[in-house]
Amino acid sequence: MKKIVLVSLALFFSQLSFSQLDPAQLDSLEIRKIYDMSLLNGKSYSWLEHLSLKIGTRLSGSMGAQRAVEYTKKELETLGLDKVWLQPVMVPKWVRGAKEFAYVETAPGSTRNINITALGGSVATPAGGAKAQVIEVQGIEDLARYGEEQIKGKIVFYNRPMRASVINTFEAYSGAVDQRYSGAAEAAKYGAIGVIVRSMNLRLDDFPHTGSMSYGDLPVSKRIPTAAISTNDAEYLSGLLKIKKDAEVYFKLNCQQFPDMESFNVIGEITGSQFPEEFIVVGGHLDSWDLGDGSNDDGAGVVQSMEVLRLFKELNLKPKRSIRVVLFMNEEHGLSGGKKYAEVAKQKKENHIFALESDEGSFNPRGFSIEGDKAQFQQFVGWKPLFKPYLIHYFEQGGSGADIGPLKNGSTVLAGLRPDSQRYFDHHHSDNDVFEHIVKRELELGAATMASLIYLVDKYGIKASEPLQSSGL
Amino acid sequence: MKKIVLVSLALFFSQLSFSQLDPAQLDSLEIRKIYDMSLLNGKSYSWLEHLSLKIGTRLSGSMGAQRAVEYTKKELETLGLDKVWLQPVMVPKWVRGAKEFAYVETAPGSTRNINITALGGSVATPAGGAKAQVIEVQGIEDLARYGEEQIKGKIVFYNRPMRASVINTFEAYSGAVDQRYSGAAEAAKYGAIGVIVRSMNLRLDDFPHTGSMSYGDLPVSKRIPTAAISTNDAEYLSGLLKIKKDAEVYFKLNCQQFPDMESFNVIGEITGSQFPEEFIVVGGHLDSWDLGDGSNDDGAGVVQSMEVLRLFKELNLKPKRSIRVVLFMNEEHGLSGGKKYAEVAKQKKENHIFALESDEGSFNPRGFSIEGDKAQFQQFVGWKPLFKPYLIHYFEQGGSGADIGPLKNGSTVLAGLRPDSQRYFDHHHSDNDVFEHIVKRELELGAATMASLIYLVDKYGIKASEPLQSSGL
Repeated sequence: MKKIVLVSLALFFSQLSFSQLDPAQLDSLEIRKIYDMSLLNGKSYSWLEHLSLKIGTRLSGSMGAQRAVEYTKKELETLGLDKVWLQPVMVPKWVRGAKEFAYVETAPGSTRNINITALGGSVATPAGGAKAQVIEVQGIEDLARYGEEQIKGKIVFYNRPMRASVINTFEAYSGAVDQRYSGAAEAAKYGAIGVIVRSMNLRLDDFPHTGSMSYGDLPVSKRIPTAAISTNDAEYLSGLLKIKKDAEVYFKLNCQQFPDMESFNVIGEITGSQFPEEFIVVGGHLDSWDLGDGSNDDGAGVVQSMEVLRLFKELNLKPKRSIRVVLFMNEEHGLSGGKKYAEVAKQKKENHIFALESDEGSFNPRGFSIEGDKAQFQQFVGWKPLFKPYLIHYFEQGGSGADIGPLKNGSTVLAGLRPDSQRYFDHHHSDNDVFEHIVKRELELGAATMASLIYLVDKYGIKASEPLQSSGL
Repeated sequence: MKKIVLVSLALFFSQLSFSQLDPAQLDSLEIRKIYDMSLLNGKSYSWLEHLSLKIGTRLSGSMGAQRAVEYTKKELETLGLDKVWLQPVMVPKWVRGAKEFAYVETAPGSTRNINITALGGSVATPAGGAKAQVIEVQGIEDLARYGEEQIKGKIVFYNRPMRASVINTFEAYSGAVDQRYSGAAEAAKYGAIGVIVRSMNLRLDDFPHTGSMSYGDLPVSKRIPTAAISTNDAEYLSGLLKIKKDAEVYFKLNCQQFPDMESFNVIGEITGSQFPEEFIVVGGHLDSWDLGDGSNDDGAGVVQSMEVLRLFKELNLKPKRSIRVVLFMNEEHGLSGGKKYAEVAKQKKENHIFALESDEGSFNPRGFSIEGDKAQFQQFVGWKPLFKPYLIHYFEQGGSGADIGPLKNGSTVLAGLRPDSQRYFDHHHSDNDVFEHIVKRELELGAATMASLIYLVDKYGIKASEPLQSSGL
């Protein structure tokens, strides 16, 4: 009996022409199809498996990055897009060299090894390594307090943790990462001979986490080597320094900077049927750090973005506007891919109405962070009910993604996929960012969530931005 | 300059007496304190570490279950609660015995092992094992179609997967678990000699997942052995049967049923200062299956519930109403702990206004599912804004938790914590439910979310339920 009712209902719906549905019902059905296709016949997971396990890390300037360019271009070419091309961009080439080594002298003749990783862009230590007493600080602002007198000749140890009480872990990251990015440049000014930084990780474990650092305008001769140590080792070292203030740390980094070289953004496009001159971008970054395999940062964003275009093709959704997937090169080490894409778009006077980035990992999607004016933001909020069946609830104004940032021009609306952030920094920039931690369903839900938003933006366009205040100012 | 402003603001707030704040502001501050305490000085994670790694599995009637009773009682006794006690309850004792073994004959003289686990409550195979041809079905409803003619003497293989397109994985579970629970009883009626079931797992992997089954009113002599096989093996076997219809499977189960024995619910109470006769329960179940270590099912719920009362004590929140933590015994294998607690509460005429259970794992909390009438549900929805800073967004009417179900009486409101469900069935009832998969922050966020709801229910009480329709019916 139940079966008969179900069959009748199915017949009824299949006879309902789509034109009899109101737009919200139609959107809701299309979005259901997008999620079904991603979850039942998705390709994101197998793409990521290849990228992570067959290619591996993809640091700008490396062989892995080059292979990733070739692989993703080849895969995009199988999708029947209207165009696929490479966009040349210059990238830095920094090489880690032999694995780092470090220890702390716990007692005369007695040492304990420390898990350490050079920060991206660091200079090497002298060939024999660097050894010195350690001064622990809670941040850059502590340096002035100790002054050159207490810092000169020592290794500065930045140990302010990410704040565990902050709910969004990216906020906690922002509150601590200045130590990694600028810590060496600042400590060098006080005569430090090296810098070690507590890893940007909320968890206590043994993985050191790398990431970009900058010497700012410090002359080459003044640059000092800098590395991250694991949170467990940071806790240990801090404890040791309380009872043995003169404990010395030895560390050896073997990194090297080579001349910049050419690499590529990988781009694919479905050309719009009605408004081909309006561009919608969806992307992630193809490069990664050279630890783990870059599955979460940002292999996930790469394959989800590719999947968005594949879902359009598979579901025969013919966009009105031109939709581009852009796999940006070199987000991690200078953002040159993002800058290049925006520069070329500006030169060509391409009208980008919207760009969406996925660069917060493969975790279960919660929603979007949106950069646009108030009316534009409200347009997105208006779509929220369509996402409720998928537990997508987060629609807030805020930052989008690093690679699409350069597209910001006062009229292009930008958005970032916001997955659950709790686990992200367990993996980020470390040997713990590996494919085994990817949950297929979560990756697929993210791709479907992105594709659904792109579907809506393509269908309805973006409201014109509010006129700027007339400026007598 | 920024610092000066911050310091002034801090002074300003510290001088603001709490009485000058409106209730929503006050609640918002109290809830912030609850989250801070759980995230910065929580105890749930170390309790779970002990429960999972030092004690391990806690199947009803086992030594592990007994040790868990003793450990949690002892820990509750350290919290300064007003009462801690054990509530006796009879539980079944089913023992798996030696590890199961199974293979499929792929060709004459050639076999492939199958990852298998007896379902809880299954009878053993004959001492030499059971071997027979296999008939694959997509569900119980297929049996009638094949009939005794095709089923008799064979092993029935239920292979309908959980539906991957369903967003809430518990819904997908409900749509498949009848095969595990009733599959053997039904197949026995058609003369099958055994049953194997595709594991309740959305992922393809090698873990077989156990769980409860029932023979219903089938006489002992008619009962047939039943086991789950891993999803990978289910896929393999199904593929093999397409090319070799007469392939035989061998399996051997060594389980045994012993007489019921006494065990305990563990209960702690903070007695209410104003309305001690109104009870609020927060709980999870102390027993687990005998695979993995039961960290997610339901060690997490146990330690989160304990943490709720600890947070009240640590933060010096003196509840108006009596708050009880109840660690239920034997959810998995007959629900006798939940039934016993409700039975005693009824005998003693205790007025339970609210009960909250955490039994969907340690994953990042999304909100609550609430069983109450419409006005009561709206009371909970009214609290939603207080949870927004913690990304808690899900307040829906629906089922709560198995253990608190027996408290349902038309006036007690019930609720279940709803964590993210995507990963749950990767672990559930298998060797993959182990402590290493627990993310400390997520566990702690769950405990804080529960404590915040309990804080609100205690402070404001529960609206009286709507009068029943006057029943001429």
